[in-house]
Amino acid sequence: MQTLKLDLGARSYPIYIGGGLLGRAGLLAPHIRGKQVMVVSNVTVAPLYLDQTLAALKEFECHTLALPDGEQYKTLDTLNLIFDTLLRKRCDRHVTLIALGGGVIGDLTGFAAATYQRGVPYIQIPTTLLAQVDSSVGGKTGVNHPLGKNMIGAFYQPQCVIADTDTLSTLPERELGAGIAEVIKYGLICDREFFDWLEANLDQLLARNAGALACAIERSCRNKAGIVARDERESGVRALLNFGHTFGHAIETGLGYGEWLHGEAVAAGMCLAADLSRRLGWISDADLQRIVRLIARARLPVAAPATLSAERFMELMAVDKKVRTGKLRLVLLKAIGEAVLTGDFPADKLIETLHQSGIPAHAHA
Amino acid sequence: MQTLKLDLGARSYPIYIGGGLLGRAGLLAPHIRGKQVMVVSNVTVAPLYLDQTLAALKEFECHTLALPDGEQYKTLDTLNLIFDTLLRKRCDRHVTLIALGGGVIGDLTGFAAATYQRGVPYIQIPTTLLAQVDSSVGGKTGVNHPLGKNMIGAFYQPQCVIADTDTLSTLPERELGAGIAEVIKYGLICDREFFDWLEANLDQLLARNAGALACAIERSCRNKAGIVARDERESGVRALLNFGHTFGHAIETGLGYGEWLHGEAVAAGMCLAADLSRRLGWISDADLQRIVRLIARARLPVAAPATLSAERFMELMAVDKKVRTGKLRLVLLKAIGEAVLTGDFPADKLIETLHQSGIPAHAHA
Repeated sequence: MQTLKLDLGARSYPIYIGGGLLGRAGLLAPHIRGKQVMVVSNVTVAPLYLDQTLAALKEFECHTLALPDGEQYKTLDTLNLIFDTLLRKRCDRHVTLIALGGGVIGDLTGFAAATYQRGVPYIQIPTTLLAQVDSSVGGKTGVNHPLGKNMIGAFYQPQCVIADTDTLSTLPERELGAGIAEVIKYGLICDREFFDWLEANLDQLLARNAGALACAIERSCRNKAGIVARDERESGVRALLNFGHTFGHAIETGLGYGEWLHGEAVAAGMCLAADLSRRLGWISDADLQRIVRLIARARLPVAAPATLSAERFMELMAVDKKVRTGKLRLVLLKAIGEAVLTGDFPADKLIETLHQSGIPAHAHA
Repeated sequence: MQTLKLDLGARSYPIYIGGGLLGRAGLLAPHIRGKQVMVVSNVTVAPLYLDQTLAALKEFECHTLALPDGEQYKTLDTLNLIFDTLLRKRCDRHVTLIALGGGVIGDLTGFAAATYQRGVPYIQIPTTLLAQVDSSVGGKTGVNHPLGKNMIGAFYQPQCVIADTDTLSTLPERELGAGIAEVIKYGLICDREFFDWLEANLDQLLARNAGALACAIERSCRNKAGIVARDERESGVRALLNFGHTFGHAIETGLGYGEWLHGEAVAAGMCLAADLSRRLGWISDADLQRIVRLIARARLPVAAPATLSAERFMELMAVDKKVRTGKLRLVLLKAIGEAVLTGDFPADKLIETLHQSGIPAHAHA
C-alpha cells in the first residue's frame, strides 16, 4: 500500500492506494468519528463490494443505499434520495457517509455530505479507474443540471480516500478506457515524463497489469494532490485539471448525460483542445499526432460526435464555470506537459476546430 | 446608520442597520466584485422594494427572480428555480446574488449562492424583522425537507447585510410579532438586561416606533454576531441560538410548513423550553410567568397547537440537528439571560411539558 497526503492544513487527508484494501482491517475505522455510517453505492457496485466494505464496519451502526447507476442520475432528485434515507434512518449530524463506487457516486455522496445538516464527514472508496485517479481526490462534489454539467455543488474534502486496485478487475472495458483518459490528462497538462511512460506502458494498462495500474494511479494522484494543495477552490492553477473538460462537458450535456462516459467525452475534448493549440501554433503537428494516437490506442474517441454542430457546441460551452464576464476561457497546451488557462485565442480558430477538419479520421479506433 | 462587524477572519463582513439604506448610493456596490447581479425576492416583497434596490445597481448587469412567498416554498424544488434562472441568464461564477426579502428568501438565496458553480458571493437585504435580527446574520443557509426543517444546507457567509428599518413599515402585523419572538430569544439566552428593556419597551416595538425598532435590531445583531464569531459552525455556544427551535421546528414540520410562522413556532417553543426548565427546578415559577407574559403580550402563541400529540412531538424532535447518537439535546434556561445545551433531563419531565399542563391557558393572547 502506498499513502499519499493531500496537504490542505486542517483539511488534509490521506489517499491510500493498493490491492486488498477493502478487506484490510483498521484502515477505515480511524477515519470515522461517530457511531453512525451510511454507505452509498449503486446497483452495479453494491453486489460486488458492499459486503466486504460492511465487514470492516462491524463496530458501527451501518445503513446502506444503492442508487441507480449512471451519469444521468447525478441530479438533485437522486441527491434527495440520499437525504430521504438519512432522515428516515434518523442519521444525525455525526453520521459519516461512505461513497462506494465511481465518480457519480463520489460526487453525489460528497455533495450530500456537504449539505446534510449543513455538513457531515465522508469517505471516498472509488471503485473505477476514473474515480481513483481523479474525481475522488480534491473535494469537488456536485450534481448536474439539464443546462450544464456539475453546475451545482460544493468544495468539500473527504476524511480519506481508499483506492483499492483490486476493484478494477470487475471494471467494464469501456470504463477502464474512460479512466485512462484522465490518466493521460495528467501527462498532457503537467508531467511530460509521465506522458512518455504512458506511450510505453499503455498496453500494460489496457491488459490491467496490476503493477502498471498502481503506478499510473499513484502518479496521477500525486499530480492531482500537488495541484489541489496549491489551489483548493480553483482560483488559479487547479483550472488546468479541466483540460479537455469544457469541450467534454458540452458533449455530455449536448448528447444527454450517460450517452458517452465522462472520460470518453474528455478524451474527445482533449483532442479538440490539442487541435486548437496546434492551430494557434502552440504545439507542433507531430505533438498533436502523438496525443491523438495515444488516445486512440486507448480505444477512446478522438473527435466530437457528428451530431453536435459547431453552433450548438458554442452555446453549450457558454455556461462553462470558467467563463468570465461572457468570455469563454479554455485550457490549452503550450507543449506536452504544459497547459495554460486562456481566453486569448481568435474565435474563428475555435470554430475551425469544432468543424473538426483537423482531426484525422484514421485516428478513430 | 449603525455598522456592526461580524468577525470571522477572512470571512468577516459588515451589518448595516438604519433607515433609508435601500436608496443609499454607494452602500451596495463596494460589496460586488463582478459585473453580474441576480436579485432574488418574492412576489410580495418585489413590488415594494425591487425598483429601489435596482436603482442602486445601475452599473451592473442585473437579473431578477420573484419566487412564491412562504415557508412551504423553502424546498429543493424552489432552489432549482434559482439555478434554472442563473443558467438561462448565463450567470457565471462571478455573479453576486442578492437576497431581498425575509428569512425564506435569505436561506434559499444563500444556499443557492453556496452551491451554484460550487460557490458565488451573495448579499443579504432582509426586509422582515425576523430576518433582520436573526436569519440574515451568521451564514446559515438551507432548505427544508418533508421530514425535517433546515435539514439540507450550508454554512456560507454573505459579503454584507443591509437591514433597512424602513422596510418594516410594510410588514404585516403577524410577521412583526414573529420577529419579536427572536428578539425576545436574545434576552432569554444571554442578555438579561435586554429582556428587562423588552418588558419596558414592548409596546413601542409593537407600535413600530422607529427608535425602539432600531435599538432592538442593533442589540439583537450584536448578540448574534458575538456568538457566531465564537462558533461559526455550531460546534458549541452557537447552539444556544436554537433556544425554542427544537420544539418550534417540530411544530412547523408537524403542522406543515407555512401553517404557523417560524417566529410563532419559536415563541411557543420558548414557552415549552421555559416550562421544562421550571419543572427541572432551574428557573422559578415567577420567571416562567414573566417569560410567558412577555411572549403573550407580543400576541404570540405560548403553547403548542392542540392537534400535535406528545407522541408525534417526540417523533418529530428525534431528527433535530442537535441529536447526538440517538440522544435528544435541548437548549434550556438556567436563568433569564442564561441558556445551556443539555441532554441531561428526565424524559418524563419532557413528556409532562409536552402535555402542556404547566402552561396557563389564560396566558393566551
